[in-house]
Amino acid sequence: MDSPDALPPVPHMSSADFRAAGHDLIDWIADYRERLAALPVSSSLAPGDVRARMPAAAPEQPEPFEGLLADLDRVVVPGLLHWQSPRFFGYFPANASLPSVLGELASAGLGVQGMLWSTSPACTEVETHMLDWLADLLGLAPAFRSDGTGGGVLQDSASSSVLCALIAARERATAGAANRRGAQATGRTLVAYASTQAHSSIEKAVRIAGIGSDNLRLVPVDAALALDADALAAQIAADRAAGLEPFFVCASVGTTSTEAIDPVPAIAAIAEREGLWLHVDAAMLGVAALCPEHRDLLAGCERADSLCTNAHKWLLVNFDASLFWVRDRRALVGALSIMPEYLANPASDAGAVLDYRDWQVPLGRRFRALKVWWVLRTYGADGLRALIRLHVALTADLAARAAAHPRLALAAPPGPTLVCIRHVDGDAATQALLDGVNADGRAFITHTRIDGRLVARLALGSAQTQAADVEALWAAVAAHA
Amino acid sequence: MDSPDALPPVPHMSSADFRAAGHDLIDWIADYRERLAALPVSSSLAPGDVRARMPAAAPEQPEPFEGLLADLDRVVVPGLLHWQSPRFFGYFPANASLPSVLGELASAGLGVQGMLWSTSPACTEVETHMLDWLADLLGLAPAFRSDGTGGGVLQDSASSSVLCALIAARERATAGAANRRGAQATGRTLVAYASTQAHSSIEKAVRIAGIGSDNLRLVPVDAALALDADALAAQIAADRAAGLEPFFVCASVGTTSTEAIDPVPAIAAIAEREGLWLHVDAAMLGVAALCPEHRDLLAGCERADSLCTNAHKWLLVNFDASLFWVRDRRALVGALSIMPEYLANPASDAGAVLDYRDWQVPLGRRFRALKVWWVLRTYGADGLRALIRLHVALTADLAARAAAHPRLALAAPPGPTLVCIRHVDGDAATQALLDGVNADGRAFITHTRIDGRLVARLALGSAQTQAADVEALWAAVAAHA
Repeated sequence: MDSPDALPPVPHMSSADFRAAGHDLIDWIADYRERLAALPVSSSLAPGDVRARMPAAAPEQPEPFEGLLADLDRVVVPGLLHWQSPRFFGYFPANASLPSVLGELASAGLGVQGMLWSTSPACTEVETHMLDWLADLLGLAPAFRSDGTGGGVLQDSASSSVLCALIAARERATAGAANRRGAQATGRTLVAYASTQAHSSIEKAVRIAGIGSDNLRLVPVDAALALDADALAAQIAADRAAGLEPFFVCASVGTTSTEAIDPVPAIAAIAEREGLWLHVDAAMLGVAALCPEHRDLLAGCERADSLCTNAHKWLLVNFDASLFWVRDRRALVGALSIMPEYLANPASDAGAVLDYRDWQVPLGRRFRALKVWWVLRTYGADGLRALIRLHVALTADLAARAAAHPRLALAAPPGPTLVCIRHVDGDAATQALLDGVNADGRAFITHTRIDGRLVARLALGSAQTQAADVEALWAAVAAHA
Repeated sequence: MDSPDALPPVPHMSSADFRAAGHDLIDWIADYRERLAALPVSSSLAPGDVRARMPAAAPEQPEPFEGLLADLDRVVVPGLLHWQSPRFFGYFPANASLPSVLGELASAGLGVQGMLWSTSPACTEVETHMLDWLADLLGLAPAFRSDGTGGGVLQDSASSSVLCALIAARERATAGAANRRGAQATGRTLVAYASTQAHSSIEKAVRIAGIGSDNLRLVPVDAALALDADALAAQIAADRAAGLEPFFVCASVGTTSTEAIDPVPAIAAIAEREGLWLHVDAAMLGVAALCPEHRDLLAGCERADSLCTNAHKWLLVNFDASLFWVRDRRALVGALSIMPEYLANPASDAGAVLDYRDWQVPLGRRFRALKVWWVLRTYGADGLRALIRLHVALTADLAARAAAHPRLALAAPPGPTLVCIRHVDGDAATQALLDGVNADGRAFITHTRIDGRLVARLALGSAQTQAADVEALWAAVAAHA
């Protein structure tokens, strides 16, 4: 073993170098955001093109920062779909507002680990505080606040939120037996419910949790593509008659395909009567409840067991920041807590604190609440309401134009931020419209299928989008219709 | 519905404001890192103290950035355990090197979503490239490279890595039946194996996956606290005789309590013979294989089905960046892939690309590979080797001093970065040592238990730690021994 003194020096980035590089990078990001409007929204690179611009092997010796920065332009930017473009209308908005970028930077700079309250109290307490602030702003029932029976936590995604809800529900339904003896511990087959339009993450969670996708019932929807509550009740009755054990239902407030809104009050009534855990997946639309006039989107949620809405979509916080609340934190923590000796500490032993590792799948966690805090303070609740109102108005405007166009049809009722259209001449014409709009790079849209027919989705909600960008989108759509 | 033009303006952070705030924040981080050596490592705040410094309700109106920055000092810093301190010797190192902070900033600034190759090709390809670079640097078998049968991916944590490995193993063992019909689909009880010293994330994964913790066998360890391979073989035989179905074993290369190293070659031989999926959890120590003289830490891993080591511990990348490789990507992707219409795209349909959403629990993902790339280039592989060698030498030096101290005993064989000690006078004296070292804030250590006895863990590996910091730790330990 060499003596430490005899070893070669370890290279490091000096504080001065970090300041210089950091300033340059901040300016690079500002420049990138400024020139986004002039860049084609999507990348035209083929598979392997990005890797072909990179050396085959890792460098042995240190490289200066200038080269790293230059490679953002040479290697990275040409291979991006520009989600922050003002003319990004694909999938869903993934806003990474500039204050949230700074919050992420601050979190990385602090570099703390928030797995336990004791491993950085501020990391846990700011997070609890943000979820309480947002519970109030969204008008959630008091039980979802941390001074009620429940509380909130930041998950990485709505997928992880629904998985945690499902695990908590599984343990509640089996009185903890599934955690000990497996998902079929009680000898009765657990059955979960969601609509045919529900997000794929629900099936993924049902698989992961050992329930099995055959035991997920995809309940039919009505003409508005919302879950049919009568069909849900009938399916539950049929499953009970067959000796199965219904235990979990997921209601969607804004489906991915069309922003359909399931009837949460009716589903809640069924869930209460039948003893099912009700999880509300309001990933895209839940944050709209910031505005009093959209508060009814969350009607019925006061009776839910858990609720998720993504700050990393419409609420301007960069990925990842999925807001997840439970009504009874004991059910969640009881399902996910394991305390090895090396993590034991007086604050946890006394039950005086929340330890968020017990509210999620991973053990480790970074200080994600900072960026939520910074976004709320930089915009103010009123500023966020103004953003939501602008997007809703722009979407309604776009929907009206599409409805009035002789060669286009609304493929589903327009949502608060989503217009689904198809060409009256059929799928080939709709595909040509999609290809035409995306080909010249001036806007980007994606597709879905409804009743087997191809549909173009025009998804609003990107923070940079102004009325002129929607005009440009409409001009492209009309040109290819 | 209001006309978009009639709505109040949406506040936003201007490019100029972002530049100014960003430069200030970069300087704040540089200052924070510089003054870390002078700050008490741990926080003395009580539960609720941080929240008491925050307003009860969210702000309605925008606030200037200066107030946000000031609250880092007023609210946040007093409530932190300073994981980046040069005298942080607790838990495990969670290095957030300055180049990785910049990489995280760049990723947030780009704000892209890498769920599919097509949703930002560079996000996927840089990640695949980094995992291939690191597979080569660590000397992994060619099968773990993306041009072999396997490939690598960045997970958020070793917990998620082992969960994904377990799900893939479950599906392989049941030929996909568990995903469809539940974890006990085959009618035979699946049984998993790890040592009594294995990380709590393995039990957590076994619970989440619906296997049940009763079906996780914690195999006895030898005097060095490493898994006893003969006991593993005997346990598997007993379980088979009882009609159960062994399917998964996790070997630890560096346990959390003591950095014990399980005999991977012997475990691999058993796993091959018995048809078990072998996952190697080398979260802390795996990256040491960068150095040829530590390559033997991963001996036997060429026969593993999956392997995890955390770049966010010793490899200087800020959380989260867990490196996870599989030998056969079809097993993993087959277990986790669901393709809804709204995500379908030509590149995925053609099978020409990797879609990393199918390699992990969440759907969404950010551009984490950037920070790995930037760390590798800023330090160079040789610089990272120098860091590893320094820490190993400092640890050996510390272990020798502890072994020679008349009132201290090594509680376990020292690991490459971990020295476990106890006071010869028993638990009360060891507790007094722990409390004494931590009380004055000049260093921070944590504890575990071995054979029921309290043990102080002196964990090295923080990038800022110099020989003088280890001297200071030793002075504190000796003073309280």
